[in-house]
Amino acid sequence: MARKKTVESKAKEARRAALLLAGVKNSRKRTALKKIAEALVTNSEKILKANEADVAEAQKEVKAGRMTKALLDRLIVDDNKIGGMAEGVVSVAKLPDPVGKILSKVEMDKDLVIEQVTCPIGVIGAVFEARPDAVPQISSLCLKSGNAVILKGGTEARRSNEVITGIIEKAAKEAGGIPDGWIQLIETREEVNRILQLDDYIDLLVPRGSNAFVKYIQDNTRIPVLGHSDGICHVYVDKAAAINQAVGIAHDSKTQYPAACNAAETLLVHAAVAEKFLPEMARWFGDSGVEMRGCPKTRKIIKGLKAAKKEDWSTEYLDMIISIKIVESMQEAIEHINTYGSKHTDAIVTRQKTRAKVFLSAVDSACVFHNASTRFSDGFRIGKGAEIGISTNKTHARGPVGVEGLIIYNYRLSGTGQIVDDYTGPHARKFTHKKIL
Amino acid sequence: MARKKTVESKAKEARRAALLLAGVKNSRKRTALKKIAEALVTNSEKILKANEADVAEAQKEVKAGRMTKALLDRLIVDDNKIGGMAEGVVSVAKLPDPVGKILSKVEMDKDLVIEQVTCPIGVIGAVFEARPDAVPQISSLCLKSGNAVILKGGTEARRSNEVITGIIEKAAKEAGGIPDGWIQLIETREEVNRILQLDDYIDLLVPRGSNAFVKYIQDNTRIPVLGHSDGICHVYVDKAAAINQAVGIAHDSKTQYPAACNAAETLLVHAAVAEKFLPEMARWFGDSGVEMRGCPKTRKIIKGLKAAKKEDWSTEYLDMIISIKIVESMQEAIEHINTYGSKHTDAIVTRQKTRAKVFLSAVDSACVFHNASTRFSDGFRIGKGAEIGISTNKTHARGPVGVEGLIIYNYRLSGTGQIVDDYTGPHARKFTHKKIL
Repeated sequence: MARKKTVESKAKEARRAALLLAGVKNSRKRTALKKIAEALVTNSEKILKANEADVAEAQKEVKAGRMTKALLDRLIVDDNKIGGMAEGVVSVAKLPDPVGKILSKVEMDKDLVIEQVTCPIGVIGAVFEARPDAVPQISSLCLKSGNAVILKGGTEARRSNEVITGIIEKAAKEAGGIPDGWIQLIETREEVNRILQLDDYIDLLVPRGSNAFVKYIQDNTRIPVLGHSDGICHVYVDKAAAINQAVGIAHDSKTQYPAACNAAETLLVHAAVAEKFLPEMARWFGDSGVEMRGCPKTRKIIKGLKAAKKEDWSTEYLDMIISIKIVESMQEAIEHINTYGSKHTDAIVTRQKTRAKVFLSAVDSACVFHNASTRFSDGFRIGKGAEIGISTNKTHARGPVGVEGLIIYNYRLSGTGQIVDDYTGPHARKFTHKKIL
Repeated sequence: MARKKTVESKAKEARRAALLLAGVKNSRKRTALKKIAEALVTNSEKILKANEADVAEAQKEVKAGRMTKALLDRLIVDDNKIGGMAEGVVSVAKLPDPVGKILSKVEMDKDLVIEQVTCPIGVIGAVFEARPDAVPQISSLCLKSGNAVILKGGTEARRSNEVITGIIEKAAKEAGGIPDGWIQLIETREEVNRILQLDDYIDLLVPRGSNAFVKYIQDNTRIPVLGHSDGICHVYVDKAAAINQAVGIAHDSKTQYPAACNAAETLLVHAAVAEKFLPEMARWFGDSGVEMRGCPKTRKIIKGLKAAKKEDWSTEYLDMIISIKIVESMQEAIEHINTYGSKHTDAIVTRQKTRAKVFLSAVDSACVFHNASTRFSDGFRIGKGAEIGISTNKTHARGPVGVEGLIIYNYRLSGTGQIVDDYTGPHARKFTHKKIL
């Protein structure tokens, strides 16, 4: 019971802080962020020490087969990574203030003007895995956008996260003007289950993790969730594709970093170019050690391939494996993507702009690309500076989400005593509804 | 089991239609909407006949005490209301196309340009009560924004909704160019429970109804919900208020239409003006038959008032009742609102702009008003043309939501064969990240 109370009081503190933080000026937030960046570097010894302890424990888990090597790799922090964390925080500090922007302005009548103004969402609950660098990244984005944040990292990064959070909290406090309680850390799985119930205090959950994990959260809370499901991304090689380009793009989309959600999992090839394209592609994939799984037609062109089963079309391998299907038309490719894809990122390779245009408007995905690798689907690459994550939501924020995903707006009306009764009935005053902005 | 299959197949049909509808030109949608408006008027006899049968049954329910008179009133359709429905559809037809707007454009590198373009959300599930006029309103907003829609009206409006939906479907089909299946009607409570599970086909739920109903939906689905909880709205009369203005605004906010969610439920009065303001206010409220419930200090100034209990501060009366509290400072008023309010609409009456500014930025509500009635919080009044509802969400869309609440965006990248590998490692190409729009 004592523990339960603790999570609630953390959430209440965060909510209280959020209400104050909403009114804090950009200059103060910028100063605090710069202090945080400095403090991360100054305190690197402390971070490394805590991380060493986490890593030592994780290594035992890996040996015992209870943790993957990939997870361990993500857990490890070194001086270089700390430098990266600090740089990231500085770049967030430099972003323009996302709060207080006037999105629209309408004169409803003389001396009755309404403005739509950006403001923070409130309290963000961020739940993520064993990457201690997520702590400065997420908390700096929240601070910049005037949101309080409740962080829950992986248990395996417990000590690292605690130390880093402490450094951030202290630096912000010393900078001055940032309300206490804006950053909260929770640690246990039970506490996560508890925060899912706290819809009175938490306004948005941002889980980063497996598809199953995100769905678990969606199923167990009424708080809105900004998450992403699988990244089942496609490259479609059109009949009008430049073959060299198609090979390069498909190869990069698959192999440049196969563990990423924006890596391609399925290659769709128009029948008209399959004979020409596939053998060349197979050579490239073969050289890079990519396992190909083909539809029956593909296997007639490239001999000895493993057959792609139906479940291959909806599998996110996150590995050096790709499924290949020959389609008779672009329409078939579009339908395949809209059926088996995950609304993440899909690319067409074609020399014909009109065909690309049809593809780009018919594929129902957050990112639709023409003649470029799916791996460009990333907040930094597309120019957002920093990224909260990639969203396959169809509401609020979609695709690579920067600080704008932590922002909402309200309406601010200025009048001189107007009442609605004067605008009702047979002698009603008319609204002017003059758009000012 | 047969029924279950039906709901799923309706949802699948809607999803198929949505994918096509996303690409339909504005001129086609406009033509279809005009045909729908005409058809509603041409077929008014049919609508009235179906409605008569619904009303006859509802009258029995009211007599038996199983339905409120207010619900019955909302159910009744007459020629005037049909005219209003048609007008509403025409006004939606005339709105600018919300689809295909370029929100931002960035040159990532030479010949590598990314655009953020508005697009429909997909399939909208709209669940509402006994107001047959909601059918043309919601479906026209969905069609205009390129979304398919699954409608579930109240059982008491069953026949009316069925006839109106049939007329809309037929008119859109005859207009041409609108994919079949874009409008679906479901009728039973079990079907609603079924659609809550269909997150593969439905992208957004828009429930209109009681707070308990909206929470029920949020608790039982992983589909995002655009809803609104209570409307516990406040009028705060500041120490620097013009007394006449304050009386007029508070009176209008409470009495102009007390059943609306934007009607005021609590009046907060600065102690410095309470002696002057409250007796005058009490006279106005008394004349209009408003029951006042006061805090101890209020009851010292206005004798004979009923005491406001703690639960009064968080009660949405939707009736001619108001709770009144005297506060010692604006800060106390702000804290009261942020504690007991529902983030809907709150107003301050003051002559001092600087005080208004503090209030407007510290109150965490969708609408914050200065010297104007809370009743202005409405899509039509603030100039949106049409309204889906008022959202107390803090994500996606907040406050009075027009057609923009049915819109999202995707990213469209145009390249010339670029791959991410060229932008990685020691000899990485640099992104230019030149903002074009």
